[in-house]
Amino acid sequence: MSDAHSLDTLIEALRRLPGVGAKSASRMAFHLLQHDRNGAQVLSRALQDAVLQVHHCSRCNTFTEAELCEVCRDPQRDASKLAVVETPADQAALERTGAFRGYYFVLMGRLSPLDGVGPRDIGLHQLVARATDGHVSEVIVATNFTAEGEATAHVIAEALRSRGLTVTRLARGVPAGSELEYVDLGTIAHALVDRR
Amino acid sequence: MSDAHSLDTLIEALRRLPGVGAKSASRMAFHLLQHDRNGAQVLSRALQDAVLQVHHCSRCNTFTEAELCEVCRDPQRDASKLAVVETPADQAALERTGAFRGYYFVLMGRLSPLDGVGPRDIGLHQLVARATDGHVSEVIVATNFTAEGEATAHVIAEALRSRGLTVTRLARGVPAGSELEYVDLGTIAHALVDRR
Ligand SMILES: [Zn+2]
Ligand SMILES: [Zn+2]
Repeated sequence: MSDAHSLDTLIEALRRLPGVGAKSASRMAFHLLQHDRNGAQVLSRALQDAVLQVHHCSRCNTFTEAELCEVCRDPQRDASKLAVVETPADQAALERTGAFRGYYFVLMGRLSPLDGVGPRDIGLHQLVARATDGHVSEVIVATNFTAEGEATAHVIAEALRSRGLTVTRLARGVPAGSELEYVDLGTIAHALVDRR
Repeated sequence: MSDAHSLDTLIEALRRLPGVGAKSASRMAFHLLQHDRNGAQVLSRALQDAVLQVHHCSRCNTFTEAELCEVCRDPQRDASKLAVVETPADQAALERTGAFRGYYFVLMGRLSPLDGVGPRDIGLHQLVARATDGHVSEVIVATNFTAEGEATAHVIAEALRSRGLTVTRLARGVPAGSELEYVDLGTIAHALVDRR
């Protein structure tokens, strides 16, 4: 694009963002350098800070800056219920319904054999340890109703049922093929009540 | 989204990128922290480096790390011809044709009164100074054929013609390789007017 080497490097770096191709990356770099250099510096610092400070909750595996996340630190929740979700965004969607007061385990992904994502990558071992802590009696598998989410739910259910736990799945109120993050609150709330 | 403050800050910072909304920003932050922490650090450094090192060519206004950009430093070009383009990407498109061997002036934008972008913001004063250096005899206005690009071309032509310069515009016409039957009417009408 230019003889500005650091500009080309910036465009290459922006292309590592999901959903950003060559044209978008050039447009982003142009915008930042021409119109929002302060934004570029804010973003640079934010990336550095997040990489240094964000890690995984030792109990539920979501992102946190503390040893335990805010939800896991809350003693008012129902310790007999554990909801398993794919991402923090899915957890946030469940929380917004106000219909679930148990704890969570966040897989931070889903099984995807074609992409080389296996049971170890979604922390299945850690989930089994969490679910067999002696307090949890029901695990509600709230993975997405996509092919990969269903396969993930199946593997989790197998692993937990063999250890004597009750495993339920969000009811089919959630439209097949959709991702929780985009489903309206009422549908999620009904699906939670009708879990089977 | 979480009790990770630096994660929320990162999502806010990503939203300053053009075309990135709340959902995309969350997805980008999740991807970087879960799957590509090295990419986050590379991007952080690239932003910092670009802000520190990239500035504007003192002659043509494009991005460069030197006092003069590579094109302006090239003594083999035709100093009597100056092409005016909106962005470095437009300049690159013209360069790829191999059909222009003069120098450039890069506006780094276009007139857009509704967005508060006036003649000063596109460096009109600097362009006039560049075009009246005594060597330039023809200015080829290669702004885009959009409403804003046409308005910009008009203002530039007025300013330069009043100083005795020859000002031309890229021809409007039927794209090479296309069949008339499938070309929109406006384009055919322009091609008819600009016939040679
Ligand atoms: Zn937690
Ligand atoms: Zn230059």
